[in-house]
Amino acid sequence: MLRNKIINLTVRDVRFPTSLEQHGSDAMHTDPDYSVAYVVIETTNAELKGYGLTFTVGKGTEIVVCAVKALSSLVVGRTLEEIVSNFRGFYRLLSSDGQMRWIGPEKGVIQLATAAILNAVWDLWARAEGKPLWKLLVDMDPAQLIRCIDFRYITDALTEQEALDILIKAREGNQTREEQMLREGYPAYTTSCAWLGYTDQQLTQLCSDALAQGWTKFKVKVGADIQDDIRRCGLIRKMIGPNNILMVDANQRWDVAEAVAWVTSLAEFRPLWIEEPTCPDDILGHAFISKALAPIGIGVATGEQCHNRVMFKQFLQASALQFVQIDSCRVGSVNENLAIVLMAAKFNVPVCPHAGGVGLCELVQHLILFDYIAVSASLHNRMCEYVDHLHEHFRSPTNIRNACYMPPTDPGFSCEMLEESVQKHQFPDGEVWKNIRKQDK
Amino acid sequence: MLRNKIINLTVRDVRFPTSLEQHGSDAMHTDPDYSVAYVVIETTNAELKGYGLTFTVGKGTEIVVCAVKALSSLVVGRTLEEIVSNFRGFYRLLSSDGQMRWIGPEKGVIQLATAAILNAVWDLWARAEGKPLWKLLVDMDPAQLIRCIDFRYITDALTEQEALDILIKAREGNQTREEQMLREGYPAYTTSCAWLGYTDQQLTQLCSDALAQGWTKFKVKVGADIQDDIRRCGLIRKMIGPNNILMVDANQRWDVAEAVAWVTSLAEFRPLWIEEPTCPDDILGHAFISKALAPIGIGVATGEQCHNRVMFKQFLQASALQFVQIDSCRVGSVNENLAIVLMAAKFNVPVCPHAGGVGLCELVQHLILFDYIAVSASLHNRMCEYVDHLHEHFRSPTNIRNACYMPPTDPGFSCEMLEESVQKHQFPDGEVWKNIRKQDK
Repeated sequence: MLRNKIINLTVRDVRFPTSLEQHGSDAMHTDPDYSVAYVVIETTNAELKGYGLTFTVGKGTEIVVCAVKALSSLVVGRTLEEIVSNFRGFYRLLSSDGQMRWIGPEKGVIQLATAAILNAVWDLWARAEGKPLWKLLVDMDPAQLIRCIDFRYITDALTEQEALDILIKAREGNQTREEQMLREGYPAYTTSCAWLGYTDQQLTQLCSDALAQGWTKFKVKVGADIQDDIRRCGLIRKMIGPNNILMVDANQRWDVAEAVAWVTSLAEFRPLWIEEPTCPDDILGHAFISKALAPIGIGVATGEQCHNRVMFKQFLQASALQFVQIDSCRVGSVNENLAIVLMAAKFNVPVCPHAGGVGLCELVQHLILFDYIAVSASLHNRMCEYVDHLHEHFRSPTNIRNACYMPPTDPGFSCEMLEESVQKHQFPDGEVWKNIRKQDK
Repeated sequence: MLRNKIINLTVRDVRFPTSLEQHGSDAMHTDPDYSVAYVVIETTNAELKGYGLTFTVGKGTEIVVCAVKALSSLVVGRTLEEIVSNFRGFYRLLSSDGQMRWIGPEKGVIQLATAAILNAVWDLWARAEGKPLWKLLVDMDPAQLIRCIDFRYITDALTEQEALDILIKAREGNQTREEQMLREGYPAYTTSCAWLGYTDQQLTQLCSDALAQGWTKFKVKVGADIQDDIRRCGLIRKMIGPNNILMVDANQRWDVAEAVAWVTSLAEFRPLWIEEPTCPDDILGHAFISKALAPIGIGVATGEQCHNRVMFKQFLQASALQFVQIDSCRVGSVNENLAIVLMAAKFNVPVCPHAGGVGLCELVQHLILFDYIAVSASLHNRMCEYVDHLHEHFRSPTNIRNACYMPPTDPGFSCEMLEESVQKHQFPDGEVWKNIRKQDK
């Protein structure tokens, strides 16, 4: 299967009109239309295709699509074997093209596009091996895993040898952990109850439904108005009781001092973490906030807009976060996330993935299963975000049981979308968008 | 003039085939085709247009063009007055659109596109006032300057009041400094002699020519091969003598420890600074390198790929650089560069702009003139990069006299290109590119 050559790469702009009902709304993204740049890789074997995506929130998806097209010439014409036998080199090729790196490097649009393509390549590889991606990773020889990672710029925090040692050490008990995951699944938390645009009534209803379904960990969007936040957090804490877990998420709303003051005033509701208190680029700011909030027992979580391994490296070096929120589409796909979870393991900081959007849950569950089975070997203070939107558009949607992600069993990276959904939601000419424009007139 | 409404914004992909002769080659960009996304803003007054650009190095320029188009709807339809009377708000609008910010925020493609548009708006404003941009800035009331800056995420390093105080203090002697600049110009250094792809013979010839023209400050590209670097630096130091200034530039080639070792082995040639020793995102890495090189008297310079004010803030907070290299196209135009030069002033670190490429010299000279006259009031350890390529394509090209930038006198931001040059170099259908494709066949 690996001998198959990639002969075509297509990319489409697919958008869901989520802003109509304020799903996904937060303090900085008030009207997101959850979207993806959706990639399909075709090979010389008509049966073997790779599906990948990167997540966006509406306008600008066409720019990412344009970037995927620009990068596609580096992919088409290669065999899968050629790519995966030197995956580190292929990663470097994509991320460091002598001309295109200028408009990154390894950040923003070009990094999101790299993620979409590499997610499709990893999907292709897992399908070629007949395994779900997490299992491909878990079964992979540590030395081969290491050869998928570009260590450029991170050797001062993690050498290849250190990474290898972590993987080898974690082999102990991996079989037991894999069986545990297949039996119980990976613990999740829900963000679906408390988007910023929801009314108190929606909040109460959704939270009560979630409790009934067995959820024990809840995230609340904050940051627009302090009185609203106090009221909403109070409401949720009261409903979930003292023993369930509450997290708050400001989506970058504050300056550094403001973050400390605002979060301190929410301390009575005992949030486990404040997520994205300030600019995602502000390592030193996050370090300051972490230090200020430590005495009141609130950690700092960030990562969904942390654009590469070099940024994560510094967040870890500076003790600027207490929860590493990897994202499956923001950085350079599995390759770069391997580097990040290994650094997190070295610094002994738990990984709690960001998910939601479109396809982020489907993708990231594979990475966190790998992290538990083959890297961190711990569930302490660890959980994966879950949002119950838009899963119906995927061929192998997430399977949540007792508030846990059950390990995917279909081969691949779980991000193949239903062709009908893609066509209906293609922007701007899909049926859904045509209808919206009709209604607007 | 300010009442005129913006009625159209066009953007074109313009590329120069510089890779054919290795102009601009460095350790990471081995074959750059210097390019721009070129913006023209039209107003209700047919005589009043604004010209702006952002610099790229070839492939991927079409992605930036796509991003400019996406942002243009936020610009067209507004009067110039509406924009400049609340420039901070307009900046926030462009940089923090609730949907588009996801694919940045304030970094990479979307930030480069923001720069192209805002550079055109500033050009338009200066033209409407009949002044070169530097003079518009120098004459502007400090309070109004402050209102052009978005202080979000930097108040922990620089408050509005502190910024205002710096500007007010620098009014003392500003008239004298302006006269001095008009008489003598702003000191420049040259990078034209020692691109990485040049032979020793080219190096020697160009260096000897430059000395004859009065240049006293020279930058050499390094980082590909240590023996080559030692030989080339030795050659240049010997030619320029002990009293002229030498800088070296690695264009992000090294990991942290490698940077320290490599630069230490070049210490005998007494470079003033090592530029971009490692990843442009690695604040803590630069801080480590700065500390390690301080005892041997070599500073760290960076900034041309530092993507926003929040990154510069941290570089300053962490003492991670000793020379701030602002760029006119990487961050959010004049607005964000105002924040950066004010922070540099507060931290007492000299600003030495990055230039070269296409149009970067034309643009950034305005900012450094402003910095000297109205902010830093110092020339100590300060100089502006100069590269003698592609100026012939501009209507108001830079004017270098005795290795100094002479202040521009034409109204605007100096980045209007000759229409004939634009058309000839448009990618992919301009005459120049058609001919190259013909020759390739």
